[in-house]
Amino acid sequence: MEANHTKDLNYYKDFYKSQLLNDTVPFWFPRSVDEEHGGYLLMRDADGSLLDDDKAVWIQGRAAWLLATLYNTVEQRPEWLEGAKKGIDFLRQHCFDTDGRMFFHVTRDGKPIRKRRYFFSETFAVIAFAAYAKASGDEEIARDARELFGKCLEYATTPGLLPAKYTDTRPSKGIGVPMILMNTAQQLRETIGDERCDEWISKWIAEIERDFVKDDIRCVMEQVAPDGSIIDHIDGRTLNPGHAIEGAWFILHEARYRNNDPHLIDLGCRMLDYMWEWGWDKEHGGILYFRDVYGKPVQEYWHDMKFWWPQNETIIATLLAYLMTGNQKYADWHQQIHDYAYSHFHDKENGEWFGYLHRDGSLSNGSKGNLFKGPFHLPRQEWYCWQALEAFR
Amino acid sequence: MEANHTKDLNYYKDFYKSQLLNDTVPFWFPRSVDEEHGGYLLMRDADGSLLDDDKAVWIQGRAAWLLATLYNTVEQRPEWLEGAKKGIDFLRQHCFDTDGRMFFHVTRDGKPIRKRRYFFSETFAVIAFAAYAKASGDEEIARDARELFGKCLEYATTPGLLPAKYTDTRPSKGIGVPMILMNTAQQLRETIGDERCDEWISKWIAEIERDFVKDDIRCVMEQVAPDGSIIDHIDGRTLNPGHAIEGAWFILHEARYRNNDPHLIDLGCRMLDYMWEWGWDKEHGGILYFRDVYGKPVQEYWHDMKFWWPQNETIIATLLAYLMTGNQKYADWHQQIHDYAYSHFHDKENGEWFGYLHRDGSLSNGSKGNLFKGPFHLPRQEWYCWQALEAFR
Repeated sequence: MEANHTKDLNYYKDFYKSQLLNDTVPFWFPRSVDEEHGGYLLMRDADGSLLDDDKAVWIQGRAAWLLATLYNTVEQRPEWLEGAKKGIDFLRQHCFDTDGRMFFHVTRDGKPIRKRRYFFSETFAVIAFAAYAKASGDEEIARDARELFGKCLEYATTPGLLPAKYTDTRPSKGIGVPMILMNTAQQLRETIGDERCDEWISKWIAEIERDFVKDDIRCVMEQVAPDGSIIDHIDGRTLNPGHAIEGAWFILHEARYRNNDPHLIDLGCRMLDYMWEWGWDKEHGGILYFRDVYGKPVQEYWHDMKFWWPQNETIIATLLAYLMTGNQKYADWHQQIHDYAYSHFHDKENGEWFGYLHRDGSLSNGSKGNLFKGPFHLPRQEWYCWQALEAFR
Repeated sequence: MEANHTKDLNYYKDFYKSQLLNDTVPFWFPRSVDEEHGGYLLMRDADGSLLDDDKAVWIQGRAAWLLATLYNTVEQRPEWLEGAKKGIDFLRQHCFDTDGRMFFHVTRDGKPIRKRRYFFSETFAVIAFAAYAKASGDEEIARDARELFGKCLEYATTPGLLPAKYTDTRPSKGIGVPMILMNTAQQLRETIGDERCDEWISKWIAEIERDFVKDDIRCVMEQVAPDGSIIDHIDGRTLNPGHAIEGAWFILHEARYRNNDPHLIDLGCRMLDYMWEWGWDKEHGGILYFRDVYGKPVQEYWHDMKFWWPQNETIIATLLAYLMTGNQKYADWHQQIHDYAYSHFHDKENGEWFGYLHRDGSLSNGSKGNLFKGPFHLPRQEWYCWQALEAFR
């Protein structure tokens, strides 16, 4: 970044590395590894004390992914490999129902509490299994990862295979499915390899570009009708800027993988440009949770709160866009979101980030982990940005 | 209330009557009656413009209940009876699935969008049918009301009859079921009469007192284990003060019906006392949404927001407690919550109340109606308080 910025790329590289290894990861590990039952105890208060010993299956997979990824890419620390194995074993032993689908929420000892109608427990297990298979060289886990990815493809492409939340009256589809599947495939490909991935990723990107990205209104929709048209009802109008920006960097990541494919760089940057405009809070800073595409009231109660993860995804997207295009606008945005996020979300006393702030930046909820938050978006951001800055220097 | 209060009971009686008839009801009617498809168009922005033409089945029933109740208790205005019929017909023609259960959300022309695993669409249809049957003298609707109430009893007492959201690993029950069924039975009894009601109401009150009211920690739980023990996990610890206070006034209402039964007065007042302490925001005023029984962070993101309906329920409960006990504390609380609510929630420009404020009283969302808000808690509060003040004068 330019000389008139106080922070240069080296600063950020060192900062992200140091935060990851000296602040974020030590908040969670080793204390969260459940030596008695396996898996992780991740529902923690601001100071790290345990709020609940239940286990959220998404987060169990994400934590195992993190530990295996650190082992694969940072340093071969035995505690990271052993910690990852604890999660992998717990997922395999306790988190699958007899029909092959996964639960969403289980007790400390692995008894099922809730199963949902989505397959995101499965996608996060795929990336955990794949990263651990690479770390351990365990061929059986690699096979499991590929097989489970196959099931995800089946769930995503077979109407009626999973129970439906809504009737067929007004069919819709969310950007979450192609986005998460794309990232799952990227992880699978870049750890243990899988021949199916490139073609599927191309299809999902094409679907996102065709059906969700609306150049005429400079917007990325969160939900659309199957033909890509906007559904003019409350849910259909609701935008999720942080989520779309996460999708933008998955596409920029794909552009890197494909030798800086100019079309994909353009697509990812357009998505980021549009959704920065929708999401960035010009009054208080930070990325807002929801907006309505026609400026009407949003029904979700936390629409104007600041959650941790949209900030993480925007830090990655703006940095990556700058590194790939050299466009100073993205360096400026990166500095803005970085400064906002680390000054408001970072818990300087206990480490890690708070998850939930009011719009004005005041704290709503001090917990570090619950059913939906754990060691994922923040450490992934710090890891990804550090690695990207290493690669681009 | 005492002379040192600026507002006496006559002031409140006139105020609630006037707000109901000159502000709240005219916001919704006649414009919300859907002359083309039947039912009501209730998803409205602050200024009354339509946000969405979908129909939330709970709210369709509640709106029909309101119109029929105004006809029964305020004045026999033909437009109220005709308006109620529009909702009753829509509910009967479009809101039942082939298995006899009701939908949750339908399109303007009555096509189903979503069905949920609860039977609250049914309970609100019961009170609508019962109130309309009294208003119209229509025996067929009265039969439908009683039959549907019978189904609710069956759903509530037959494990496994409705699809489950959670597994059997950690069974729990919510206070919502006995509370809402109690109020449904009260409405049924006091409109068209039903011999089953008194006994059931006694059972539900006994269950609430035995399993949900915790005198040792001065608290009313929102969820407990089947034996009434506290489930020490995030969900099990979450308190909903406004909801428990609604339950408190349902019990005070029952005490009135039972010739001021002293045990029920004591129970209702205890519930109100406990949950006022948990819910009242000593810093900003108003009733908070959620608290954790052990003071830990609450997972629900809107825990510290101010929603309209907990204020409405608390206005009723404090007024009724004062009228029934003469305890000045309740008059003071009523004045506090009344002043807070009408100065922060009431939309002086367009009428009716906003639904969603931040903790500090600033506006989060200006909509007057959506899937969850419509003409119910506010008009019911104004109607109930007015009627109670008439009865007690």
